[in-house]
Amino acid sequence: MIKRLTIIGAGLIGGSLALALKQAGAVEHVVGCGRNIDNLKKGVELGVIDSYQSSIAEAVKGADIVVVAVPLGAMESAFEQMKGHIAEDTVITDAGSAKGSVVAVARAGLGLQFQQFVPAHPIAGAEKSGIEAGYAELFQNRRVILTPLDETIQPAIQRVVDMWQQCGAHIEYMSVEHHDKVLAATSHLPHMLAYAMVNYLSSLNEHDEIFKYAAGGFRDFTRIASSDPVMWRDVCLSNGDTLLQFIEGYKNELDMISSAIKTNDADALLALFGKAKSERDSLIGNC
Amino acid sequence: MIKRLTIIGAGLIGGSLALALKQAGAVEHVVGCGRNIDNLKKGVELGVIDSYQSSIAEAVKGADIVVVAVPLGAMESAFEQMKGHIAEDTVITDAGSAKGSVVAVARAGLGLQFQQFVPAHPIAGAEKSGIEAGYAELFQNRRVILTPLDETIQPAIQRVVDMWQQCGAHIEYMSVEHHDKVLAATSHLPHMLAYAMVNYLSSLNEHDEIFKYAAGGFRDFTRIASSDPVMWRDVCLSNGDTLLQFIEGYKNELDMISSAIKTNDADALLALFGKAKSERDSLIGNC
Repeated sequence: MIKRLTIIGAGLIGGSLALALKQAGAVEHVVGCGRNIDNLKKGVELGVIDSYQSSIAEAVKGADIVVVAVPLGAMESAFEQMKGHIAEDTVITDAGSAKGSVVAVARAGLGLQFQQFVPAHPIAGAEKSGIEAGYAELFQNRRVILTPLDETIQPAIQRVVDMWQQCGAHIEYMSVEHHDKVLAATSHLPHMLAYAMVNYLSSLNEHDEIFKYAAGGFRDFTRIASSDPVMWRDVCLSNGDTLLQFIEGYKNELDMISSAIKTNDADALLALFGKAKSERDSLIGNC
Repeated sequence: MIKRLTIIGAGLIGGSLALALKQAGAVEHVVGCGRNIDNLKKGVELGVIDSYQSSIAEAVKGADIVVVAVPLGAMESAFEQMKGHIAEDTVITDAGSAKGSVVAVARAGLGLQFQQFVPAHPIAGAEKSGIEAGYAELFQNRRVILTPLDETIQPAIQRVVDMWQQCGAHIEYMSVEHHDKVLAATSHLPHMLAYAMVNYLSSLNEHDEIFKYAAGGFRDFTRIASSDPVMWRDVCLSNGDTLLQFIEGYKNELDMISSAIKTNDADALLALFGKAKSERDSLIGNC
């Protein structure tokens, strides 16, 4: 049982975590903390959180677990503000979608207490944001990747594992660097490509008509371009080197298609598309 | 009422058209024509078509309407084979997803009877293919774009309009060139980007793991990479010039994101992503 859970950044992820733990009967009291007081009040009204604090220093006092679920760009400030206010038996974790940058600012902010910090990334989300978008089932059968460091203490890891398992999630472990590479490929790169796609079509003269004729495939393809711009700005700034490398690699792959079109190379086109189809069908399934 | 409908290329589109017209009580007899006899026999068993022919010359005889629903790369041969076998009151139409190339081969194949040909493109499809994937509702509330030429005779256009409306589709008109530009943007380009994405990730060392961690957004983003490789090879060969131009334009847009990441330009990133989100939300809706 978690007696006191503090969620810093009460948005979709933080709100859903609170709801899931409450539904599982795994938490007694949830403190919400953030800069938007109206949002926190709404969280109390909706029963997502039990009380709220605008000061991080106050919010973390007496917490069993502190979950930092702010955008990546607000992580540094959050860790700085909790410095000196964290009890020795408090476990700290986060929900950031890049881990290298979070580990760096957590290490700087927490000092010796960095050993109580368990970097975590729940692989779940939605295009909607805000505490009112939260729902208890968000993490059911989803993966939560933990990237503990050599100095991370085992009891802290165990508490975070228990917390996410009570939300229905599966735990996996990776190194920080490996996490950031795998996520750049599966999440960060596709978001960049979808944002670029929508912006490119908007720039064309016929853009109203183009969006009107967009079929189902186009809707699916660009859905992630409706994601939160602040979150994705921060991802770019936090995992930029890896992401840039992947964008370049992607452009080279796209050039292979362009070259085959330019030379009317029917066999090359069929091979490129056939390979993609069989890879996707076998690795993800035709869905 | 269509007394005799001939469908050349009895796949997803042709089969769905036959089923929709039968459900609407708008056709008496459907002849299926194709090279795969087993597929045609299955079509008869399933009640999608009423009889079949392997010879196009035979299949078009006595037809009120002939629908050419073969891959773009098989259009030229189909029109050549029907030459001299088309009655004066037979209407010919197609379902190709690029129109410039189809119009060119239809004009060459049909000669003076080109005036009986109504170029059409139903904006509907699925990742599955084959006659057994067909279903009567595929065209409900979908758009069918007609691109008639100056010489196309009005009664032929009207018969094609009636046929698609009986399937629940809405009719729109465009010039051939405009159609190929709008479709390159909304359909052909996204397919290229999705194929390139899957191939790029497959080329990475960690590809099994990458596909394992792919979240919902990634599934949506790459769904169209499970589309039929033959169809998309033919689209590239049929609408290559426009598509190449769009791929280049897209790469320039992607470079704007790369530049902003390289220079850690937080404001530029926020502006790029914010613009994409608001365009997509307002033009397509957050869905």
